[in-house]
Formats: sequence, structure tokens, C-alpha cells
Amino acid sequence: MPLLLALDAGGTSTRATLLDPTGRCIAYARAGGGNPVSSGLEHASSQLGLAAEGAVASTGAAPSDVGPVLMAMAGMSVNASTDWISGPLKNRGFDGPIRLESDLLATFFSGTWEPDGYGVVAGTGSAGIRVRSGLVERSADGLGWLLGDVGSGFWIGHRVARAVVAALDGRTGPTALTALLLEDLGIPATGELVQSGRLESLRLATDALYRLRPVELSRFAPLAFAARDDATAKAILADAADALADLFTAIASPAVTGPLVLGGSILAQEGVVAESVAAAAAGRVTRMHQVPDGMVGAIVLSLRAAGVDVGPEVFDRIVTSLAALR
Amino acid sequence: MPLLLALDAGGTSTRATLLDPTGRCIAYARAGGGNPVSSGLEHASSQLGLAAEGAVASTGAAPSDVGPVLMAMAGMSVNASTDWISGPLKNRGFDGPIRLESDLLATFFSGTWEPDGYGVVAGTGSAGIRVRSGLVERSADGLGWLLGDVGSGFWIGHRVARAVVAALDGRTGPTALTALLLEDLGIPATGELVQSGRLESLRLATDALYRLRPVELSRFAPLAFAARDDATAKAILADAADALADLFTAIASPAVTGPLVLGGSILAQEGVVAESVAAAAAGRVTRMHQVPDGMVGAIVLSLRAAGVDVGPEVFDRIVTSLAALR
Repeated sequence: MPLLLALDAGGTSTRATLLDPTGRCIAYARAGGGNPVSSGLEHASSQLGLAAEGAVASTGAAPSDVGPVLMAMAGMSVNASTDWISGPLKNRGFDGPIRLESDLLATFFSGTWEPDGYGVVAGTGSAGIRVRSGLVERSADGLGWLLGDVGSGFWIGHRVARAVVAALDGRTGPTALTALLLEDLGIPATGELVQSGRLESLRLATDALYRLRPVELSRFAPLAFAARDDATAKAILADAADALADLFTAIASPAVTGPLVLGGSILAQEGVVAESVAAAAAGRVTRMHQVPDGMVGAIVLSLRAAGVDVGPEVFDRIVTSLAALR
Repeated sequence: MPLLLALDAGGTSTRATLLDPTGRCIAYARAGGGNPVSSGLEHASSQLGLAAEGAVASTGAAPSDVGPVLMAMAGMSVNASTDWISGPLKNRGFDGPIRLESDLLATFFSGTWEPDGYGVVAGTGSAGIRVRSGLVERSADGLGWLLGDVGSGFWIGHRVARAVVAALDGRTGPTALTALLLEDLGIPATGELVQSGRLESLRLATDALYRLRPVELSRFAPLAFAARDDATAKAILADAADALADLFTAIASPAVTGPLVLGGSILAQEGVVAESVAAAAAGRVTRMHQVPDGMVGAIVLSLRAAGVDVGPEVFDRIVTSLAALR
């Protein structure tokens, strides 16, 4: 059997692993954002190509030695078209079949080889899935910053920005978040007034915040965790905790038992948010496990797509050999 | 003294009134959106020109008979540059001096000639001002859909859209808003499932909603009023009511007494939102008055800029003669 290539494409970085059909990882490489929705088709396909080449280049192998390629990315299912990426990869010498999979499924299988269970991710966005017999049976949220993504980094960061603006505007009391946000934006926190009795720092902050793309407000989520003793920050985190507990409840079913795999920077933070999801899941899952990304799961999915049975032994081999590479 | 021209430029329509220096309105015309921020400089200046020409054309006067031109528009103060509009108006024959004023001040003076008081507007956006000696002494909010505009049409419509998406996604219980929103979007409310156990109507609704510009979500605010007995709609309106009461409280000062002038479609709706602002203002204002737009106030400001003293008699003349024209 030829070598396999698994890619885990995120909005800010792409990971690629070259492996053999026993699950032994041979080489690992990274490149920039590889999601065609957030990065654009051209940028995404070039970063995916770079990551793929990077993994292969560090071995003695050539792209033509690589067989099937599996890519896990947001918003994708196994039925999605691969036309936008097959040409660019063929140009680099990768001529094996290409398969797309959901990044959520890859996150789930980064934590377990078991065919049933749950995955909840809260990074820039948020989503949950119920997995049964290795497939997504039910998903919830993942509906983007404007309409969903409850409890996500955007959701928290947006509330941080709104809370600071309201406090600077005198509509709410002071919050410790103000100093943190102004420092992040490089704005001096003076009491200087400009026209209509407004603070100069309010004008500078709103100008700076509107220059960001909305989804970039997720960069302020860490401020809520940093100021977790502040009443405003605490309320934001408590709302996020409730929202993510509701997200788990929406996907939970008595018919499915198995592990809960957690991903994303928000759930990696200790405190009320992760605890709330854990409390909602208690008694309904066999165990909980945090994963840093979907790389292991993309490898699991690539092996299964090639007809390899991935049980505990193969899963351990993947995890151990990958850990040695990164 | 020459004739005066007053324009009230909004995001969706522009109003123009030609008047004499006694406050008698001679002609009135309308055109499309005249705000350079929301409509773009070229569209805004052409619509302002059309409205100005329209008002003059219905009389025997020529543009050159018109003296000072006053324009009230969002985000503008008397110090803002008029370069973008003076050329286009000169090309149409209007060569008098041009002055810009805040649309909030125009809204306030649409309800009163008195120099002190308060104005609160909740339309697509929301903002409040405290007026003292005819000038804005303190303003609050008006900070846009992403960071502020609490209790506004966008704020309510955004919550309506999110609530319906959450209900269709099974994260919250059913709400009467779902049928109303799907009908508005022309989406059949079937129970058909697509991939990952999700409703087809959820996929269609999120696709349709992301095709709108965010600020266009304000068009769903009326659904919350239509479904006001529904628990979800009621909670959204109660939050808007609290937010707008806080907005009034932020601008209120014991040192300023006078009327409270209310503008915008949200405060024109009967019910909890308008009542909440009225309750917050009770005992702190001399009376409350609802106005449909800023046309009367733009006229008041144009007269004052020309050195005309606008008291109760002139104010009544403006209101009566304008009402006869529109």
C-alpha cells in the first residue's frame, strides 16, 4: 500500500502528516491558513500544497509515492467538491484521490478511536457533534459569528468589546476590562473629553475596533479570562458557560454513550466555561478529553478511508509517533 | 434676506424644505438615502442634490435664489467638512454657504424650540443627547451595530434572527418568531432533515441571513413587536426596554430640565420599550414628544444659523406650514 497524507486545515494554520498504512507517522509539517472560506480559494490551496510538500520533502519520498490524501476542514463534508484543490495538488505531483472531511469529526477522532461519542469545540467559533458508528449523527451551532457560535472566542471577545465601549460611554459602571482592552489596542486611558462630552479614548477605541473584521474581535476573549474576578468579565464567562452547556445538551442523546472530546482555545482555559460543559456532560459520557487540534483525527479518518481498521493499538501508534514529530 | 434650504438626510430617504426667513415653509421634496457613510459619497451627494432641486423646482424660484443650506445627518457636527457636497450643489446652481448639523440635534428641535432638554432616537441605530443652550452637551451611544446601538432596530432584529436560528438548531425551545422570520424570508417551514440531523429550513435561513448586510437585520425588529406575547419576543423587547432606559439615564442631568423628544421607528411602537424610556424619564423632563424625523429641527437649525430667533411663534409657523406641504 502507498503512503497516506492527512491534512488538518484551520483558519490560521494547516498541519500535514505523512504516514504509512499501519498508522506510523513519518513526517509532519505546517503552513498558513488552509480554509477556503476564511482564507480564499487561492491562498488556501497554496497553503495546503505547501504543508503537503513540507511533510513529504523531509523524507526521501516523492509526492508521487503518496496515495490517498485526506483533508479535514471547517464546513466540509465527505460529499463536498474537491475540484478547487485537486488541480493545485496534482501540479505539485500529488495524484492520489482526495477526500474532504469535517474538522469537527477530525477533532472528535483526535481524542478517541471509539465510534460513538461527542465532540464540542469552542475556538474562534463553536460547534458540537454527536458521533455514531463513526459518522456525524447530529450537529449543533457552528453557524458563524453573526447568527451562532455561542460561547466562542468571537462571542466572548465581542461582549468584552461592547462592555468596554458601554463603560467608556458612561452607560454602565467601570470594569477592569477597560484598561486591558485599551492596552491591547495601544490607546492611552486618559480622561480627556472631546466633543459632546465624550472621552477621547472612546472615540479611539471605536475607530480601532471598527477597523477589525468582526471575527477578529475573538482576540479579546483572553481578556475576560484574565479579568475573571471582575463582575462584568465574570458575567460574560458565566453566559458563555451556560451557552456551551446548552450546546452539549442539544446534541446529547441517551442512545449514544462514549467519550466527550473537547477542542478549541476557550475550552482549554481552566475555569467556569470548561467546568460548565463538564457538569452538563457528567453521567452522560464515559470520559472527557481535551485535544489541541484535529491532526490525529484527520489521520484516523485517512486510515479508515483506506480501509484500515483503527482500534486502540493503531490509535496509540498514531498518537505516539506523531508526538515524536512535533 | 434670501430663501433658506434645510435638508434632513437619513440612511433611506432625504427630505428637503425651502422656507423664508420667517419660518414659513414654501416647498417640500424627498429623495433617496443621503448619508455619505451608509450610501457612499456619490449616491448621497446626488440624492441631496435631487431633494434640493425638487424643493426649488415646485416653486417659481431658481437655485440661485436660495441662500444658506443646512443639512442634518448622522455622525455630522457643525465642524465637519462640506467639501464632498459643496461642488455637486454648486453644479446644480446652489451657491449659498453649506452647514452640517447632527441629525440628533435636528430630531430634538423637531419636537421643541426650547434650548434645553433631551433627545433619544431608536431606529436602525440608537443614540441619546442632552441639549443645553441649543447645543449638544452630552451624547451617548450611536456607536453602531457592532459595538453599540442598544435597543435599536438592528439590536432587536439581530436577536430575533439569532433566536430563530437557535430554535431551528434545537438549542432552545420553539418560538413564535420562527414562523414569522421564515415567512419573511420566503422559506417553507418543513421538518425536512438534511445532513447531520439538521433542518433544511435552518440551512436556508442561515444562507439567506448571511447574504444580508449585518445592519439589514434591523428589518426583523417588527417581528418582535408582532409576536410580543411570545416568551422569546417578550424577553428581547424587555432587554431593549432596559437598554434604552439606561441610555436615557446616562444622558440625564439634574442641571438640565426640558422636554424629551423621541424619534425612530422603535420608540414609535406602543408597548414596553417606549414605556420603559418614559418611566426612566418621568419626573426628569417637562414633557415627552414623538417626532417622525428631523425635518422640523433641520429648519429650526437653518433659521438659527441665519440669525433668526426661533421661539414658540416661529416654531408653530414652521410646523403648521410644513404639515400643509407633506
